[in-house]
Amino acid sequence: MPPSDELLAWVVLTRAPRLPTAELAGALALRGSAAEVIAAATRTGSSAEPGELPALRAFCRTPAAQPTRAECRWLEQKDHHILPFLDPRFPSRLQELRQCPIALYVDGRLDALRDPQLAIVGSRNPSPQGRENARNLAEQLASRGVTITSGLAEGIDTAAHEGALAVQGQTIAVFGAGVDVVYPRGNRALAERILADGALLSEFPLATPARRAHFPRRNRLIAALSLGTLVVEAALGSGSLLTARHAVALDRGVFAVPGSIHNPLARGCHALIKQGAKLTETAADVLSELDFSSFCAGAWRPPTGRSPRQAAEAGMDKDHKILLDALGFDPTDVDLLVTRTGFKPEAVSSIMLILELEGYVQAAPGGRYSRVARSP
Amino acid sequence: MPPSDELLAWVVLTRAPRLPTAELAGALALRGSAAEVIAAATRTGSSAEPGELPALRAFCRTPAAQPTRAECRWLEQKDHHILPFLDPRFPSRLQELRQCPIALYVDGRLDALRDPQLAIVGSRNPSPQGRENARNLAEQLASRGVTITSGLAEGIDTAAHEGALAVQGQTIAVFGAGVDVVYPRGNRALAERILADGALLSEFPLATPARRAHFPRRNRLIAALSLGTLVVEAALGSGSLLTARHAVALDRGVFAVPGSIHNPLARGCHALIKQGAKLTETAADVLSELDFSSFCAGAWRPPTGRSPRQAAEAGMDKDHKILLDALGFDPTDVDLLVTRTGFKPEAVSSIMLILELEGYVQAAPGGRYSRVARSP
Repeated sequence: MPPSDELLAWVVLTRAPRLPTAELAGALALRGSAAEVIAAATRTGSSAEPGELPALRAFCRTPAAQPTRAECRWLEQKDHHILPFLDPRFPSRLQELRQCPIALYVDGRLDALRDPQLAIVGSRNPSPQGRENARNLAEQLASRGVTITSGLAEGIDTAAHEGALAVQGQTIAVFGAGVDVVYPRGNRALAERILADGALLSEFPLATPARRAHFPRRNRLIAALSLGTLVVEAALGSGSLLTARHAVALDRGVFAVPGSIHNPLARGCHALIKQGAKLTETAADVLSELDFSSFCAGAWRPPTGRSPRQAAEAGMDKDHKILLDALGFDPTDVDLLVTRTGFKPEAVSSIMLILELEGYVQAAPGGRYSRVARSP
Repeated sequence: MPPSDELLAWVVLTRAPRLPTAELAGALALRGSAAEVIAAATRTGSSAEPGELPALRAFCRTPAAQPTRAECRWLEQKDHHILPFLDPRFPSRLQELRQCPIALYVDGRLDALRDPQLAIVGSRNPSPQGRENARNLAEQLASRGVTITSGLAEGIDTAAHEGALAVQGQTIAVFGAGVDVVYPRGNRALAERILADGALLSEFPLATPARRAHFPRRNRLIAALSLGTLVVEAALGSGSLLTARHAVALDRGVFAVPGSIHNPLARGCHALIKQGAKLTETAADVLSELDFSSFCAGAWRPPTGRSPRQAAEAGMDKDHKILLDALGFDPTDVDLLVTRTGFKPEAVSSIMLILELEGYVQAAPGGRYSRVARSP
């Protein structure tokens, strides 16, 4: 069955410059559909129409504003979905994000997204014991009905997905690429097995290649989908700690597996425990903290911005402050921030994402950022 | 030099049935010396003299109420001390204990007891890595001037003492036997090395054999002497966890070294961390929490029976409140208070002493008391 014009309009919107869900919700309320929102942006004259999104103007006059044949064909296939944020099946937990994705591409069982999830993440190069711990904990939790969410990366992510599958549990893989781009390639068979009962999902447009720069956004989605995040082996400064940080910012549980003080991959976990993450030896440590049974999916609520915990936290991370100080109110690109601060490009990218999510900066076209006049 | 009669009287008192320090302080204030307190108990007729301790009566008529030749000889030797709780050199931290020892036997440098100490305790059968961790942490801390206190047991205790000695640091061993009974025997050479700069100590009378039943009292003394307790490998339910529990009750810091979730000797440490102990990877984790430099030994303070934390929490002890309510602003004697409250005379005496020291009541001639108009 060919996809509806409305779904294809959402596909186009996912390729547009980042649209805040609150603005988009306003435009949709006025125009009635995504297709009408795009039509309004396309036919607009020199003055804006009511309910027009200025960010869409330039975009809608480019060829990118048309769905591709590949996108149409992908959507035609069984269990392939695009899920707009206003869809009642859209996971309500994501709406606690400051920048909620406007839609998710999902391959697999949509229902899986509404089930209570625990994120299990960690190093791409774990110790054999770390890999086994991730697998065992995923088995224990999945066999008790917890859906295991992770990033399909090598190492801990793979072990977590495999542990859930080993006990016929449900697992969800979140991609830092288009949902039709399995990365790493070696995990194609694993992705197929996940599809049987779970789902693959991504906020990136179809065919988007996997890039390091995408992983911070993928990590934030993993944290936001889940009631809690369990970190199994992670070096200091690794992406898994950023995932945990997102979980903290969203006031979700954070769990970490301890290890020898001589194992560099235990250091990240120990740092989290010192900051208040729950030391986790068995599934019981997670289950005693989070009530997976009472979870209720709920419908879409307008984003409130910050969690109570974030609001309560006064102090700002030193590196974040340095970057914010290096940024003016004019859009500035990452290269210039690297020059100004001496930080590595990856660090700048991931911190800017956090600052954006926290409402301190806003993304401008061309991968640039500017400060928000009135910070939270 | 032969020991004074007064010191020998204290030796005898350590062998008497357990005497609460508050009662003993009252009797000493009245009688002037330990020798006189014993004399009063010995010559007493059928009715009690003022300042007599009823618990001493029967004891003073046994041969045990005489110092032995061995005790005299021990006290004659260099660096052998008995330290009554009223001695200004007695460690003031011990007075936060509900049952403060009335005296300590010390072999070695008395000054060591007043230095800021960290207890390092753990399993008697640790893993090789656990032993090395204890030794390394003791080295790191002792080289920064922290005195390491432990129990001279095999395993972690031994490694902790040895670590301190390896960097010419100071270390204190607390015995669950007489201070002249080194246990385990294999640690005799270690005990000798500790003596060079540190101390061996015990609250048990000389020649008391090491018994399992003594270890809980030894553990509480280790916790009470120290600003904090660091546990390195301990099984669930082990004595080290009891030491940590004493440290919590005394509002001292508790620290624990994490390990593999598959190491049974890490479980006790993990349990402590879950209960709020600080996860410890390096000496910095301890030093950032406890300020060993600002510690001030201070002189003997009258026992309040309660730690500052307890006092801040509860307000006033229930029994104290009852007695205070039974007391008017006119001088009232103890017999009348006994009649009014139904408490035992000893209890009334010792509580009145505490209330006096705390400034709630004042002593009047004839062993009577009155309330102070403006309580603290």
